[in-house]
Amino acid sequence: MVKVAVNGVGTIGKRVAEAVKKQPDMELFCIADVQPTGQLRTILSEEGNLHRTPLYGSNEDGAENLSEAGMHVDGKLEDVMDEIDVVVDATPPGIDEANKEHLYEPNDAKAIFQGGADPSIAPVAFNANANYGEAEGKDFVKVVSCNTTSLSRTMNAVDSNFGVDQATANLVRRGGDIPQDGRGPINSTIPVTDVPSHHGPDVQAVMPELDIKTLAVKVPVTYGHVHMVTVDLEEEISENEALKAFEEAPRVRVIESENGFDSTGKVHEQMRDLERPRSDMPEAGVWKETVTADGDTLYWIHMVHQESIVVPENIDAIRSMFEMEEKEDSIEKTNEALGIE
Amino acid sequence: MVKVAVNGVGTIGKRVAEAVKKQPDMELFCIADVQPTGQLRTILSEEGNLHRTPLYGSNEDGAENLSEAGMHVDGKLEDVMDEIDVVVDATPPGIDEANKEHLYEPNDAKAIFQGGADPSIAPVAFNANANYGEAEGKDFVKVVSCNTTSLSRTMNAVDSNFGVDQATANLVRRGGDIPQDGRGPINSTIPVTDVPSHHGPDVQAVMPELDIKTLAVKVPVTYGHVHMVTVDLEEEISENEALKAFEEAPRVRVIESENGFDSTGKVHEQMRDLERPRSDMPEAGVWKETVTADGDTLYWIHMVHQESIVVPENIDAIRSMFEMEEKEDSIEKTNEALGIE
Amino acid sequence: MVKVAVNGVGTIGKRVAEAVKKQPDMELFCIADVQPTGQLRTILSEEGNLHRTPLYGSNEDGAENLSEAGMHVDGKLEDVMDEIDVVVDATPPGIDEANKEHLYEPNDAKAIFQGGADPSIAPVAFNANANYGEAEGKDFVKVVSCNTTSLSRTMNAVDSNFGVDQATANLVRRGGDIPQDGRGPINSTIPVTDVPSHHGPDVQAVMPELDIKTLAVKVPVTYGHVHMVTVDLEEEISENEALKAFEEAPRVRVIESENGFDSTGKVHEQMRDLERPRSDMPEAGVWKETVTADGDTLYWIHMVHQESIVVPENIDAIRSMFEMEEKEDSIEKTNEALGIE
Amino acid sequence: MVKVAVNGVGTIGKRVAEAVKKQPDMELFCIADVQPTGQLRTILSEEGNLHRTPLYGSNEDGAENLSEAGMHVDGKLEDVMDEIDVVVDATPPGIDEANKEHLYEPNDAKAIFQGGADPSIAPVAFNANANYGEAEGKDFVKVVSCNTTSLSRTMNAVDSNFGVDQATANLVRRGGDIPQDGRGPINSTIPVTDVPSHHGPDVQAVMPELDIKTLAVKVPVTYGHVHMVTVDLEEEISENEALKAFEEAPRVRVIESENGFDSTGKVHEQMRDLERPRSDMPEAGVWKETVTADGDTLYWIHMVHQESIVVPENIDAIRSMFEMEEKEDSIEKTNEALGIE
Repeated sequence: MVKVAVNGVGTIGKRVAEAVKKQPDMELFCIADVQPTGQLRTILSEEGNLHRTPLYGSNEDGAENLSEAGMHVDGKLEDVMDEIDVVVDATPPGIDEANKEHLYEPNDAKAIFQGGADPSIAPVAFNANANYGEAEGKDFVKVVSCNTTSLSRTMNAVDSNFGVDQATANLVRRGGDIPQDGRGPINSTIPVTDVPSHHGPDVQAVMPELDIKTLAVKVPVTYGHVHMVTVDLEEEISENEALKAFEEAPRVRVIESENGFDSTGKVHEQMRDLERPRSDMPEAGVWKETVTADGDTLYWIHMVHQESIVVPENIDAIRSMFEMEEKEDSIEKTNEALGIE
Repeated sequence: MVKVAVNGVGTIGKRVAEAVKKQPDMELFCIADVQPTGQLRTILSEEGNLHRTPLYGSNEDGAENLSEAGMHVDGKLEDVMDEIDVVVDATPPGIDEANKEHLYEPNDAKAIFQGGADPSIAPVAFNANANYGEAEGKDFVKVVSCNTTSLSRTMNAVDSNFGVDQATANLVRRGGDIPQDGRGPINSTIPVTDVPSHHGPDVQAVMPELDIKTLAVKVPVTYGHVHMVTVDLEEEISENEALKAFEEAPRVRVIESENGFDSTGKVHEQMRDLERPRSDMPEAGVWKETVTADGDTLYWIHMVHQESIVVPENIDAIRSMFEMEEKEDSIEKTNEALGIE
Repeated sequence: MVKVAVNGVGTIGKRVAEAVKKQPDMELFCIADVQPTGQLRTILSEEGNLHRTPLYGSNEDGAENLSEAGMHVDGKLEDVMDEIDVVVDATPPGIDEANKEHLYEPNDAKAIFQGGADPSIAPVAFNANANYGEAEGKDFVKVVSCNTTSLSRTMNAVDSNFGVDQATANLVRRGGDIPQDGRGPINSTIPVTDVPSHHGPDVQAVMPELDIKTLAVKVPVTYGHVHMVTVDLEEEISENEALKAFEEAPRVRVIESENGFDSTGKVHEQMRDLERPRSDMPEAGVWKETVTADGDTLYWIHMVHQESIVVPENIDAIRSMFEMEEKEDSIEKTNEALGIE
Repeated sequence: MVKVAVNGVGTIGKRVAEAVKKQPDMELFCIADVQPTGQLRTILSEEGNLHRTPLYGSNEDGAENLSEAGMHVDGKLEDVMDEIDVVVDATPPGIDEANKEHLYEPNDAKAIFQGGADPSIAPVAFNANANYGEAEGKDFVKVVSCNTTSLSRTMNAVDSNFGVDQATANLVRRGGDIPQDGRGPINSTIPVTDVPSHHGPDVQAVMPELDIKTLAVKVPVTYGHVHMVTVDLEEEISENEALKAFEEAPRVRVIESENGFDSTGKVHEQMRDLERPRSDMPEAGVWKETVTADGDTLYWIHMVHQESIVVPENIDAIRSMFEMEEKEDSIEKTNEALGIE
């Protein structure tokens, strides 16, 4: 049993902690944070899924903050580092680097970082579908961001089957998550003026050979980014071949508009109806009707649930780093434990 | 075991059907509808909570529509009415009346109608907290709407404890539910120009003695109505007394802003973190910090999750109509089965 | 000609500056700011309405910032204070107090402050309809906020005609202005947890005898707050009497829902169709169909264009402070110059 | 003086009517409609810009509707067709075709149709920049839609200067206009599942040689579509060359993010600050910072004010149809009359 700590219990951290707990070959040793946020209180409450999980301060001050807020704190993370095999670090960019230097490296602990981290933080940018093997035996791995994960999954499905000559992906990002009521925009569309956007190079960190160009805007919605994708293939293919590639790719969900799921809101409702935890959708969701082949051009539109898509990737990264399973076996194990198709 | 059919599997119907299935003293005999909607497909799918529940057409055409869409249909509702004790009718206004006349009355079946139904459809407008006893033995009962339910719960808590002289409640309604992407408004506030709004008389159908005045507007959000309430009491009370009354009232949840839950979005997130099914909140949610006593005036602001708040009321209505339990016992039984505080 | 400077050229400042320029008995001596914002550049550009208006730095640093950004700066405000009769200060709260102490008082200049200012900043909280005379001869006056202005206008119309026993006003505030794309909430309603809200006492600063209770929430729209109002009168009146009072009150616009103006969006469009500058509506807008009398209770719903409603009040405040005109004459003069009904 | 009638006084019709009135070489003979909408009442009111413009019913029923609503109606359009040189038809798709067959053709009147019309309605799909000459002498012309107009303007600027090999444009459409409060989506992104979207072929109706691929989604904003564009050029160019091409193209506005205009909301505010009528922006707005050259790839992001961008095109179409001016002269004349840069 790999002993896992989750440091930073926010949007991603809380989900990864719960996912670790559901794996048969992992133990959630503890969680750590610095502030008594509402979500931390909720998941540790009697009704919460992490009730009675040991809670540590990420540092001295953090332990104090939590204690003063009346939460039960077992100490600070540093004091139990020798009992931990790997830390999933879901702290903000900058903090993660300090943690690596002062906490993980000195204690010979492996660590996984998230999509916002500086690329230099780890030698491997990880996506299970695309490059599972590269994390094997590594001490530090960065799981790429939600947008990059969805592009890696779908691009890998197409590239490995048909060969991608060149790809253009334009992103329509959500303004904030459901609880982030301080974030805008209200009634505005905001162009990302760094052009091309960083998402192209981010995908190339996972798939170095891919020629991909990206642009992005931000809009006032809370559940899901949407990507419009146009790809030049090395060969002409049929729509059915493309659909089959998506259907067979792990963690890619083909969504049928014609059955009533023709918006991010309706897909959100489907996740609610399936009673997925938190109404999450960890799969990249490709709208079936948008998958269109025209000569050697392939189009599709997919959505990305920004909060949950990287969760299974963190789990697989752990297995790869400890060489616990082969790629397909890990993916299957994770999916089964998390109820992913 | 009371045999229950749910006719009309939309926002409310699907939730009531699942809630019936969780009760120890009820059997979900079947569900019925007329259209192969996305949500119907989802809940009946292998991953869905109502997988293998018998599905009937609400009528001949409905059975045909469902069949033609490739769904497994067991027949039409009419053919099995003699095996059903009570129908929870969650069909649109107008249809419900036709159902009563042509389907429920001729077959001597009891039926429960929803908040949109015409008041004349049933002799009792029902809210478990406020008038459970009035539905005892009745054949037809109308469960009041989401807004009315939340007002009945909170007003009853205050009125039964301190006596309400006069109340003003102003409603900020959500524009549409999460999947209703065809509904507006975008970036607009819409006043309800029928003044005073129908919500006052609706509450009076449950609490006839209450002097309550209401106004309403509609705004671009999807999860939750919010009510601003000002009440003149018969006596001066302290804030603590008011809070205690809310805390002790069944299905009223006191929400602590100071712990990070100071918006409908953050409360939604809390329901997600608690992994409540569909992130629903069937309780009326009173923001603790807004409960303010000033002389004999009491203020509070509460939110209403419009999709789920009436679900436990439908269950209690069944028990009252069949005189299966006393009020407190039924409420407790329902709450326990549904995981409501 | 009263010489007016506007210090702080934001949402309110830019509008007041342009309004001053349109008055026959005032001269816009200069504007002053500290940052080269987009709006400052626009209004001073060749196409802009304040092209060639002298621009000063509000202070030394401000002058430098503007200069470095390539704007033409005439110096700093302090250097020309002896030529200015009155400053309309539209700087942020806190800054306004410092300006009063270090700039206006030492230079014996009169000044007008805005709704966000601390009440102690001036002996008079001003609304032209309600208390024009109180500002006569004063050196410092505070024009009350947008919400307070709309309540003062409508309450004064009702109170002066029929007598108000008690009023309840519940506010649905816009999340941010059109250009404030950094502000939320997206898809969330936020209760103001200071209960009762500050708007009641704010109105009482203008109408000290009024018994008024207020609550507020914030929602994701950009154009207009909406108020739901319930008033107990000293006498029974008819709807027509109430409507007549609103129609005769200056700067109150009666909006006809039935003619297609039944939302803030549609009223915004009406202002666009009238080609009002910036699509502003400086009047309080009462929806005709919501004005409802029931015994001695009077209901109505009105909207407030948060950006422009205080602009004519600033102009009238100047006339009152310099005793240039009687109340009715000043209001009429201002309205005519600004094209207000 | 060409005598112009505008049939259908909605979003586009009312703007074109006012634009015609401002041209030195055109006369607004009349407007015609079928319903007494709020906007029709507003623009014909005493405060309105079309006060005293003759109003006709588009047909018998229309004349009656308007009359019954108390509006002054001069008759029905059919009765004065012999005095009209050209009709700008801004009626809904379907109606426009019936009008052509039963009203314009029988009366030998020229007519201009709008972007929603079926392509077969006219032999020319018109954009002033791209193909002004093709409408010369024609009886029927279709002005292309807002999205197509913006793409035609920007693509023509790039193609005519540098040659376009292949273009990909992905569109983020607004959900509804400011007054369309009945339209969604709230908090949802809706993919257009017809892939590639119709916008590519629409541009090709104007620029037949252009190889362009388009996809589209719809989001909850009211002011402006946004397009993300990636183009392969025939040659390598510098960013400055690209910028210069945009700056020199008529009706293309280069927007500087760095000066504070980095969202559609802030650009909307700029139009308000410039006191453009209705805060309209008839230019295509290219964000300067997004114009990026990388080898022979050129990127940019532009916005489209959906309500006004086609207005000057309708004016130019009239001049071309009557061979009144050469392209450049007409564009300049229109721009000057409308205050377009």
